[in-house]
Amino acid sequence: MDQNLNEKIVKIPLNEMQSVFLRILMDYGMEKTKAKKCAEIFAVNSLEGIYSHGVNRFPRFVKYISEGYIKTDAVPTMMHSTGSIEQWEGNLGPGPVNATFATDRAIGLADKNGIGLVTLANTNHWMRGGTYGWQAARKGFVFIGWANTCVNMPAWGGKDARLGNNPFVIAVPHDPEAIVLDFAMTQFSYGKMESFSREGKKLPYPGGFNKNGELTDDPGEILETMRPVPIGYWKGAGLSILLDIMAAILSGGLSTHQIGSCEKETGISQVFMAINIKNLHNFPSIQSSVTNIINDQKKSIPVGEDTKIRYPGENVVQTRIRNLETGIPVDGGLWKKILNL
Amino acid sequence: MDQNLNEKIVKIPLNEMQSVFLRILMDYGMEKTKAKKCAEIFAVNSLEGIYSHGVNRFPRFVKYISEGYIKTDAVPTMMHSTGSIEQWEGNLGPGPVNATFATDRAIGLADKNGIGLVTLANTNHWMRGGTYGWQAARKGFVFIGWANTCVNMPAWGGKDARLGNNPFVIAVPHDPEAIVLDFAMTQFSYGKMESFSREGKKLPYPGGFNKNGELTDDPGEILETMRPVPIGYWKGAGLSILLDIMAAILSGGLSTHQIGSCEKETGISQVFMAINIKNLHNFPSIQSSVTNIINDQKKSIPVGEDTKIRYPGENVVQTRIRNLETGIPVDGGLWKKILNL
Repeated sequence: MDQNLNEKIVKIPLNEMQSVFLRILMDYGMEKTKAKKCAEIFAVNSLEGIYSHGVNRFPRFVKYISEGYIKTDAVPTMMHSTGSIEQWEGNLGPGPVNATFATDRAIGLADKNGIGLVTLANTNHWMRGGTYGWQAARKGFVFIGWANTCVNMPAWGGKDARLGNNPFVIAVPHDPEAIVLDFAMTQFSYGKMESFSREGKKLPYPGGFNKNGELTDDPGEILETMRPVPIGYWKGAGLSILLDIMAAILSGGLSTHQIGSCEKETGISQVFMAINIKNLHNFPSIQSSVTNIINDQKKSIPVGEDTKIRYPGENVVQTRIRNLETGIPVDGGLWKKILNL
Repeated sequence: MDQNLNEKIVKIPLNEMQSVFLRILMDYGMEKTKAKKCAEIFAVNSLEGIYSHGVNRFPRFVKYISEGYIKTDAVPTMMHSTGSIEQWEGNLGPGPVNATFATDRAIGLADKNGIGLVTLANTNHWMRGGTYGWQAARKGFVFIGWANTCVNMPAWGGKDARLGNNPFVIAVPHDPEAIVLDFAMTQFSYGKMESFSREGKKLPYPGGFNKNGELTDDPGEILETMRPVPIGYWKGAGLSILLDIMAAILSGGLSTHQIGSCEKETGISQVFMAINIKNLHNFPSIQSSVTNIINDQKKSIPVGEDTKIRYPGENVVQTRIRNLETGIPVDGGLWKKILNL
């Protein structure tokens, strides 16, 4: 569901949304500190415009708790430590809490050793991968992280789903906060295609194959075949396999084909890498170097008069400011449903 | 130039090609051990089917030596070491020799600390990024590496080139050798588009924008606008910026906008990361885990009767076997030109 396209929108202030989430999570048995962290992540994701992995996803998160896929009382336990690597068992705890924890561990290792790699086996969906990129970059660290997912995309040359739409995150500190790239392996998410389909709109670029095996920008045709294209076609399919392989073998956890159906996605594998730039010999010039790169991009000749050249994550700060002022847009029916949880 | 499309092809045995390259590089002043390593990399890249970064590129490599962009006698010098990170100055030495060295250093750090990150500032083109992935994976390490390049692709929303076609490599050990993903940020390389254009063929998928700003599969139209699409559109443009930013700030070297024109691409920045999987708690099950993932892919329902589902790097081994048997295909005119160097 796209908040900008819906007419029955209510605007919820950040604090109110966070309090509602906190109350519900505690009602469902989550201990207060954890519930606060989850409520904050769901609310901030929404505040920053990532509604699909914020308020819109909250009911499903609660459903997974009540069905036992997410264990509210579980905390990660360390399986193994070797040099700058730590392998943790996620014990099917709440994904955002586990991922926040793992990011902090990676930062700690990087602080000591220059670079740190932390893995989580058997964890749950982290919601918005960018959350952990912002977390590390705000503390002054470069971050690279990824997760595998349930099965939802064919291999290159295949018709049936075998790959995951694995999210991949890279973040770098940059004034005022960070540059954060957060993308998944399909050109468009299923949520986005469903939203375009409901409105009878074409996708802005080809997003998958129709039943004749032809590339199409008709979201309905892609939802019918379940054959979204990977970004860059064979390249994104290859990246999806490699991210899955690395997530599974570095964590000792499940791979996409073992996670299986997206109906009940649980037990996924995640990787968190932090790099300490403060001790690099060129640290004093790093921020001006990043600024110069961004400034050069901004000098581009735009394709249209109104086209803005933006760096990854630039929109987030603007959306946050707008939603802080006016409240977070939520579908009225959805908000009512959440209040009744 | 695509070896499969040219009629005046000669077939050169691996040893002969390697000897010819070695003789020429030594004639141009390169010391024997280094010249052997470069000759080997150029010949093996060709043997394994990556002609664009093997024999086809060799004359340009020699030209860069004679013009002083590549310093044959330079070796990397360490700038700084902090924990599991080493920052090296490439001193504009031969790219493949510098990159082989940096990969070995990353492996050494990973062997000791679980993970190692090595950067090169002011180095030269490494030719085929996959070379270093194979190097690390054959020794049993996971590898992640990337480089920035000269300016050759517009930012998302821009018309003029501001980004690099940065190569990105991920490699994982897998029987009989490795799974190696090696891809650059444009959907098709300029070399590939020129080859299709010469033959009057359309690209298999949209590869860029025409002068009306429309997506096109006509390679001639894209060569005219110089507006190739990044893989996954805005996603690949974002990945290109982040790889450039990380290469520049982690190495303390130049970023794409500072490297500038592709006419004389030199002084680039590269990152080499190795991960030691031998000390992970799940090491004994890693190879079966990778095999199971690949086997699952292979069970895909193929889109066509003759469609093969392949993992990244699978073709390389097959091409190597074929070219070892029959000789490496080279354009006859090009080979004559090389013999006269």
